[in-house]
Order: sequence, then C-alpha cells, then structure tokens
Amino acid sequence: MLNKEKIIKPIAYIRTEFPSKFGIPRQSSLKNELFGTIVFEPEYCHEEAFRELKGFSHLWIIWHFSETEKGEPSLTVRPPRLGGNRRVGVFASRSPYRPNSLGLSCVKLEKICSDRKSCSIPHCPLGKNLCKKQSGISLLVSGIDMMDKTPIFDIKPYIPITDCHTDASEGYTAITQKHTLSVILPKNIDTVIPSEKLSRLISVLEDDPRPGYRHSEKDSDKTYHIEFDMYDIPFKVKEDSLIVLDNIKIN
Amino acid sequence: MLNKEKIIKPIAYIRTEFPSKFGIPRQSSLKNELFGTIVFEPEYCHEEAFRELKGFSHLWIIWHFSETEKGEPSLTVRPPRLGGNRRVGVFASRSPYRPNSLGLSCVKLEKICSDRKSCSIPHCPLGKNLCKKQSGISLLVSGIDMMDKTPIFDIKPYIPITDCHTDASEGYTAITQKHTLSVILPKNIDTVIPSEKLSRLISVLEDDPRPGYRHSEKDSDKTYHIEFDMYDIPFKVKEDSLIVLDNIKIN
Repeated sequence: MLNKEKIIKPIAYIRTEFPSKFGIPRQSSLKNELFGTIVFEPEYCHEEAFRELKGFSHLWIIWHFSETEKGEPSLTVRPPRLGGNRRVGVFASRSPYRPNSLGLSCVKLEKICSDRKSCSIPHCPLGKNLCKKQSGISLLVSGIDMMDKTPIFDIKPYIPITDCHTDASEGYTAITQKHTLSVILPKNIDTVIPSEKLSRLISVLEDDPRPGYRHSEKDSDKTYHIEFDMYDIPFKVKEDSLIVLDNIKIN
Repeated sequence: MLNKEKIIKPIAYIRTEFPSKFGIPRQSSLKNELFGTIVFEPEYCHEEAFRELKGFSHLWIIWHFSETEKGEPSLTVRPPRLGGNRRVGVFASRSPYRPNSLGLSCVKLEKICSDRKSCSIPHCPLGKNLCKKQSGISLLVSGIDMMDKTPIFDIKPYIPITDCHTDASEGYTAITQKHTLSVILPKNIDTVIPSEKLSRLISVLEDDPRPGYRHSEKDSDKTYHIEFDMYDIPFKVKEDSLIVLDNIKIN
C-alpha cells in the first residue's frame, strides 16, 4: 500500500574482536565478556548528543547485517539453535537473512569515552594505540554479537518499563538445549595470545562455533578456522572436546 | 568512516485508532488496551513468513517516524516526561526527532489473523468491514504507540534471554512523576462513542495528552482537540480534571 523507500545512513560503526562472521555469538547479551567500541561519524561526535546517557545501563543498537545482504531474502529461515534443519518464518526469528537487513541488539553500556589520554581500559577492542588516534566520543559496550566494522543506524536507551517483559513467552527458543564443548588448548598458547584475550576466546569456543547441523558430529577430521582479534585459530572437534591446533597464525 | 547510505522499504504498515500524533502514548507497552493491526505488503503476505511466531508473546517493531522527518535532526531533545524543558542527548532518548527517524516498539502479539470469515475481534482497529476486504496475513498487537498507517521496516520476536534485563537502570526516566487527570465526560457521550472505544479513549485522556510544559497549567481556557478513531474530541483542563466538551465531531 505505502511501499515508500527510505534512505538511511550509518551514524557510527563498531569495533569488535570478530573480523569475520564465524564464531560471533548468536544473540546479544549472551557473552557479557565480549566488548565492542562504538565509534561515531563526525556529525554525532559531540558530548551533547550523549547527555544523561550514563544513567542507563543498557542500550539498543539498530544496525546493518552488511555481510548477509546479497541475494533475495527468504520468507523462512533455519535458526542455528534448532540444528539448522527446521525452518521457521523470518518474522519468527532474528536471522540476518531478512527484509531490510536490520539487526537489533541489546548491549551493556560500560563507559562513555572522551578522554583519550587517561584511557586505560584493557578490553577495549580499539586497543591503546588505535584509541589515541581516535577523536571525539566513543562508547564501550559489552555483550556484543556484531562483526568488526558493522555500520550502526541508531542507538536508544533501554527503558525497563517498556522493554523488560518478565512474562514474555519465548517460543521455540525455549527448547534449545545448552550445548557446550570442553576446550583443549595447545601448551604454548599463552606465549601467543595474552591471557585476557584468551579467556574471551575460550568462552566463544566452548559454545561450539560450528554450524548447527554439525553439532551432532562427534568425530570428524575437518579443521575449522575461527578469526578472533588478530589471530587465525584452527581447531577440530572430537567427542565433546574442541581441540585448538598449534598452528595459530597472526594476521 | 563508512558513511554508506542504504535504502530500506516498508514491509508492512499499522492501523491504529490515532489518525494524528496528539495523544499517542509516549512509549510502547504503557497502554496495553490500545490495539493495532499490522497489514503486510503483498510479498510478505504468506503464512510461511510467520511459521512458529505464535509461540512468542511479544514482538519488536522497527518503524518509521514518518511524520517527524522534516528538518535537521538535533543532537539534543526535550523529552515530554521531563516537562519539555530539560534537554538530554538524542541517544539518551527515544525521541522521534533523531538521525534516520527509526522507531522501536515492543508490542504484545494478540492474534495472527488469516481467516477473515470467522474474525470477530472487537478491538481490531481495522473494523469488520475493512477487515473482510483485506487478504492475507495480518497481526493484531496491543500496547501500541504508533500513528495510524505508520510504515514498518522489520518485525522480530522478543527473546527474553537477550531482551529482558531486570537489572537495567533506567536513567532519568526513573524520576518521572506519574501525572494523571480525572476525566469528566459529557452526559450523552455513550450515544456517540461505543463503550468499548470510550474506555480506551479515557485511558488515553487520563494520562494528559497536553505537551509536557503545559502539565503544570491548572486552569487555562485553551481548548485542545484529540483525534481518536473517527472522532474529533475537544477538551479543556481545570485543576486536576480533563473535561471533554460536548461538541464531538465525527470525521
């Protein structure tokens, strides 16, 4: 009936430790130890745009599934949490393959950063050197589920009275079995990856980053690669263990 | 840095009892008795796009503040709940005057409608006659805060594990005083407005639809008009009462 197109423009982008899609948590707020830094376009890089924001603990981010936009969106999708075999309607899922490719995430606001000189946050994915080159405002957030450099279209405060529904029924997502693996690391890994980054990497690996339909495979010779921060990390899965191989590369 | 524009297209629009902005609740989920019917564009009007949706009680709607898009967005806004005088950053508010004019609402899913013949929902804003002309799927939702015919860009299920944060701090929104008025109706009003619609209208009026900075005015001769459904309803405010005048018009 209306069918009016509209042009939207990124207001910001996010820096995270995920240079590619593989291994990114399937929803926001699932891995609170994963951080992101939201860096704003110059026109929004003013303290006044964030006045009174620090009173809110959580934020909504409306963002762009920029990596999955190719191809026609389908009316049904196969959520990974259902093993990748069962189809549900696109509007009954948060799948990236959807009309308009808009993502919605709830993240925790950790810090509003403007003073670059005194910044010494260990988990900021920008890192100290990159951070000091940055001017203006950025937001450090946790519980992210976004790829590095994802474009962001809007940020809104989480308002409990409208957003927190303790009585909400969770549909098919309630029946998801918690599937985890124990992670076996090569002996020398702490000489390659600093311990703080390593603990975040382990939390991602124990959730089994393989595609949902592979989760039942107990013993395959297939080597997977996850990109995390600057590292390319090869692994295999045997029984209920994820074994990190020792030929880790630094990109 | 990226600044890449993107074109988005409405997937649906919503029918509500608010033909204009004045009187619309300031957030979703505040008035659960207010209903809306989401009507889809032909390409999404297929049952499969909604498969397994009925297991979810709540939905997210990403929509277009189509009426407030004119003019440059400001970096600060004056939330009505702060009396309309205090400025906060645009990213610390859900104000309609914002970059990209994107709205975000949480609504309750009441019914997935496809069988028009047996439809007899009293509060569907489509009404029986309009509904029977409609083909395909529509969604009846409650707790709406949208104008009639608002374009919708996406619909996603509410997933409690990621969306429900009982520990969230609510910033300046916590200090809002609950301000209500007692509503005085003209004697003959139930011969003009059916009782079911009237109870919804009262719930809107008792929240004082006047602009925030007018809330402290105890006695003004100013006549306001609220449009609700097909009615134009004039009212005045004296002390703590909202008095509906008797020259109600039917548009």
